[in-house]
Amino acid sequence: MVYWLQCSECGRRVEESPSTLLCPVCSRAQKAGMSLRGVLTTRFDQLPRTWPGEQPQGLERFLSAFLPFKEGPPPFEGRVGHTPLLPATRLAHALGMDHLWLKDDTRNPSGSTKDRASYLVVLKAMENRIQTIACASTGNAATALSACCASAGLRAVVFVPASAPVAKRVQIQSYGAQLLPVEGTYDDAFDLCLTACQHFGWYNRNTALNPFTIEGKKTAALEVAVQLGGRAPDAVFIPTGDGVILSGVAKGFEDLKQAGLISGVPRLIAVQPERSDALTQAFEDGHDDITPLQSADSVADSLNVTAPRNARMALRVLRASRGCALRVSEQEILMAQSNLARSTGIFAEPSASATLAGLKRALDSGCVTPDESIVLLITGHGLKDIDAASRMLSPSRPIAPTLEAVKARCRVQCPS
Amino acid sequence: MVYWLQCSECGRRVEESPSTLLCPVCSRAQKAGMSLRGVLTTRFDQLPRTWPGEQPQGLERFLSAFLPFKEGPPPFEGRVGHTPLLPATRLAHALGMDHLWLKDDTRNPSGSTKDRASYLVVLKAMENRIQTIACASTGNAATALSACCASAGLRAVVFVPASAPVAKRVQIQSYGAQLLPVEGTYDDAFDLCLTACQHFGWYNRNTALNPFTIEGKKTAALEVAVQLGGRAPDAVFIPTGDGVILSGVAKGFEDLKQAGLISGVPRLIAVQPERSDALTQAFEDGHDDITPLQSADSVADSLNVTAPRNARMALRVLRASRGCALRVSEQEILMAQSNLARSTGIFAEPSASATLAGLKRALDSGCVTPDESIVLLITGHGLKDIDAASRMLSPSRPIAPTLEAVKARCRVQCPS
Repeated sequence: MVYWLQCSECGRRVEESPSTLLCPVCSRAQKAGMSLRGVLTTRFDQLPRTWPGEQPQGLERFLSAFLPFKEGPPPFEGRVGHTPLLPATRLAHALGMDHLWLKDDTRNPSGSTKDRASYLVVLKAMENRIQTIACASTGNAATALSACCASAGLRAVVFVPASAPVAKRVQIQSYGAQLLPVEGTYDDAFDLCLTACQHFGWYNRNTALNPFTIEGKKTAALEVAVQLGGRAPDAVFIPTGDGVILSGVAKGFEDLKQAGLISGVPRLIAVQPERSDALTQAFEDGHDDITPLQSADSVADSLNVTAPRNARMALRVLRASRGCALRVSEQEILMAQSNLARSTGIFAEPSASATLAGLKRALDSGCVTPDESIVLLITGHGLKDIDAASRMLSPSRPIAPTLEAVKARCRVQCPS
Repeated sequence: MVYWLQCSECGRRVEESPSTLLCPVCSRAQKAGMSLRGVLTTRFDQLPRTWPGEQPQGLERFLSAFLPFKEGPPPFEGRVGHTPLLPATRLAHALGMDHLWLKDDTRNPSGSTKDRASYLVVLKAMENRIQTIACASTGNAATALSACCASAGLRAVVFVPASAPVAKRVQIQSYGAQLLPVEGTYDDAFDLCLTACQHFGWYNRNTALNPFTIEGKKTAALEVAVQLGGRAPDAVFIPTGDGVILSGVAKGFEDLKQAGLISGVPRLIAVQPERSDALTQAFEDGHDDITPLQSADSVADSLNVTAPRNARMALRVLRASRGCALRVSEQEILMAQSNLARSTGIFAEPSASATLAGLKRALDSGCVTPDESIVLLITGHGLKDIDAASRMLSPSRPIAPTLEAVKARCRVQCPS
């Protein structure tokens, strides 16, 4: 496999090494607390020109052929990706739609899409015989890195805001990672991780800063196209914080287009909470970069970021796909979480559920039409933050173990 | 597909109907608070005589052919099962073993093996145009039923002990199920659910009582055999409460044997907490039924049962497989949870982690040997009970967002 790293801004070819993160030229314009300059993308000389065959491991081989390894990916004992694309007929019907699919990435090892990026970064570390990987994260990326490092026998050091949900922190520590809760925001944790990696010589998995995070996330798009029988949907809804999942999904479809397997990238729809909407503001204002927010504090904790790190690339791919960015309210997110679980059996975290809230907005505004084929990327499991889910639930008081108690409770609530 | 229900004790053929639960004759000997008498099993006239082919949906079609539907299973939009069987080379090496696999059933929709049983019961309800299904559960079965009902648009009413972990209760309610926390034990909830189903006419999914719970769980064994390339392992370790997963796994291998696809059922190893060991006691004493415990209160909450409902069948299949029953301590369970997550990247709940504790015991006692091929059934996700996992973790205090703070913390703990 012949591939190289290219600056997404100036087009310069950049040599790959474990310490290569951004374009050495464009990153000179980098300012603290802003989106990244000179994020690198991976370019391939040649990609598979046929869809995966019917043999066992067909998809496995197909996906591997799109990954940036000169001699194929190193062996990895976990199983990242290969998540189901589920039809959602009743939900579609309720929305007056024809074709709605849910890419259920809650089924990844650590319960989120972030496993895809961590998987690829861990493979890169293995290729380079690196022992320690660090990252900053709102919680899911750190959890994913911790899980993938545990699978591979590597060490993880992770920086999260001290406010990260307790389930994510317990999960990280359970995998044996070094957890460093930072007094500050995700943005503070991001900068601190960068400094610490430079000091200790750790491999940095920070999203976007490490170009392979984008390559890992693109596998979601490759799988969707295979699962749809060898085509792209009309639009994909993506919960958006730093803009890396968005960029990764775009990259996946771009690679398929380069291979001649699809004719174009679907419209990408970025969904952000009103309380963390830097990218949406820039999109609406026609800017090619964001203005950092004063704060970002949505219940969709995975999306809380004042200065989306991959904003510049995300804005480009959004526009190139003729997509859009949407914001949704806290109440809409929590309602969507409940609606999604009740109508499909998928219990997703608030950030992931934001896609359904965004779909409703997009249908209302005409940004998508009910006859289009739509995919929602369900990025994280609901068990990662049960406090959020609890907000929409009435407390369920215990009953005595008698039929009378059941009848009394059921007079009000039980189905017949 | 020609199949029928048969009493597992007297061999009588019993007509299938939604209200058919136990053998009408053997169940007359039923006593309150004891294991069930006359549990039914499903017998097939003919089963597929070849392993799944290489076509897409090969496994899907293969599994469907082993399920008890006269005209194939009804369409279901969720995706239950099809979970990975992962090699665990480093863990095996640490244990001095050659071949260790983990059947990662945490990847099911609601995060546990119980989805397999709920899936089949929901399909049966769909076939019979039933709208409401009820069950009693320590938590996971109820969560699974709630998720599968949400996928299918059915109503779920679930009885759990009021002490069930909060994450499981939140998950159940999020799926829109009617949650009835019962002041009492799982055993009290089981009996109350039975009474309520008779009163309200709900379809009863109580484990073992509904024969299709066993059929659903057998799919784990079918998948393992396919994933091993068309053979059974030497032994399978199964966390055991009521004994239904154990019976289901045995049934899966028995069906494969009947089909002529494998030569015999692997040794089955039941693992129970010392604090909930009714089945192990009966096994050791050579009895064919259990003596109910006074209490069952392990950290492995899914396994807490004073009178395992399917004990009689479980004891028979354990002995028939030349397997055994083992008990493990609370400390061993929590250590195994940590060890499993750190060495494989699978974060499992305590009940599921008990299999690893059991494996260590079994290696020590010579019940299995290091050269055998062993599968651990990892039944539930660690996120379902983070309080349990927290017990093994040191609190991680927040640090200031400075390199000095990282250095100070890392002087003690960080890898270089």
